[in-house]
Amino acid sequence: MIKSFEKPILTVDVAYLSIHNAQLEILTIRRQNEPFKGQLALPGGYVHCDQDTDLRDTARRVIAEKTQLEPDYIEQVETVASNTRDPRGWTATVLFMALVSQSKRDNEESLGSGCQWHKLDSIQSNELCFDHAVLLEKVKERLIAKSRYTSIPLFLLPNKFSLSEAQQFFEITTLSGLEKKSFRRRLLDAEIVEDTGELSKTGRRKASLYQIKPGVGVHFFPRMIG
Amino acid sequence: MIKSFEKPILTVDVAYLSIHNAQLEILTIRRQNEPFKGQLALPGGYVHCDQDTDLRDTARRVIAEKTQLEPDYIEQVETVASNTRDPRGWTATVLFMALVSQSKRDNEESLGSGCQWHKLDSIQSNELCFDHAVLLEKVKERLIAKSRYTSIPLFLLPNKFSLSEAQQFFEITTLSGLEKKSFRRRLLDAEIVEDTGELSKTGRRKASLYQIKPGVGVHFFPRMIG
Repeated sequence: MIKSFEKPILTVDVAYLSIHNAQLEILTIRRQNEPFKGQLALPGGYVHCDQDTDLRDTARRVIAEKTQLEPDYIEQVETVASNTRDPRGWTATVLFMALVSQSKRDNEESLGSGCQWHKLDSIQSNELCFDHAVLLEKVKERLIAKSRYTSIPLFLLPNKFSLSEAQQFFEITTLSGLEKKSFRRRLLDAEIVEDTGELSKTGRRKASLYQIKPGVGVHFFPRMIG
Repeated sequence: MIKSFEKPILTVDVAYLSIHNAQLEILTIRRQNEPFKGQLALPGGYVHCDQDTDLRDTARRVIAEKTQLEPDYIEQVETVASNTRDPRGWTATVLFMALVSQSKRDNEESLGSGCQWHKLDSIQSNELCFDHAVLLEKVKERLIAKSRYTSIPLFLLPNKFSLSEAQQFFEITTLSGLEKKSFRRRLLDAEIVEDTGELSKTGRRKASLYQIKPGVGVHFFPRMIG
């Protein structure tokens, strides 16, 4: 005989990160319903068994309904679950990390209602409801770790960027200073970016502008970057 | 008003890997209930909201009830969910990768009923039920990727091992040949293993036996191993 069990609640939460004014920022949403009505949360929502065919669908729906901001890169980080993290009962949330490029960030037209970017350093853990401060820590750890051996920080850059900007973004995400020559050699050796032939309009010296090669996904560097 | 949704089913599946006779093996269990009664599956089970405080608890319970084999290393790989992967309805499974050391493998006394080790290469994807062949591919990918930049293959070794054995195990998990001198230097530089002072009893030349230093967890190598 197969016993029937109380089923847990399953949700998806999406931690959006971007870099703005050389600082990491996180997208929060002000909760419109109880519990924690009026407080800040990561955008998220329930799995809808009748609508979603899989978790990607749920994430897509949450993104469309809550933020209207399609990220430039998304990956599943971890599933966090317990009987105490949500007053509504036993819940599991599948946590996603979403990276938003500076170009998209600068051209935000219709960010979802109640959505707001915050400096990651200035947000206090008690401002976030549920265990979202813990989720955010997990996402930060993943970003730092993965920025050391993959090319994912490229997805945070503007569409066209100088090698100095690329280095600056990797320094922000890896939390470490990088040696200029070695960083450039490794990025160019990876053959994942290409010179656009254009020059930057700012700065004392005009720098060549690069872009991610069309169709290139995440690259794994043979040696740690930072 | 908060709508009430049909809740998905939440399960945990544990993919146990070990190395036996220089080959990767996977632990399967023969299903005792429908659906797919009598077929092979990864050991797994439902989250029990009334018993489990979190997913680690669920994994612990599944391990105790189904396999009775405590792994030497366990990590969450990914949550896979859809409305088609299980005939019982919308299900999400949190997939764990579990590594079993050769010493523990060789001393198996009471493996759970219906559990059996299979060579990873010889198991056909249609022998596994549900989408467990897909889950297994994800675990293999994780093992290969993570063996290239972390010390996790050490958890597959016998408790005491020669540096040649360590190299052989890393070669199996990274699917690549490794250069002897460089491998040894990197392993020793990491300061995660220590010479036991004992010598191996087999082989033409007696080799020094090493062990993982007490209390040492997963080490991230500064440079890819394979």
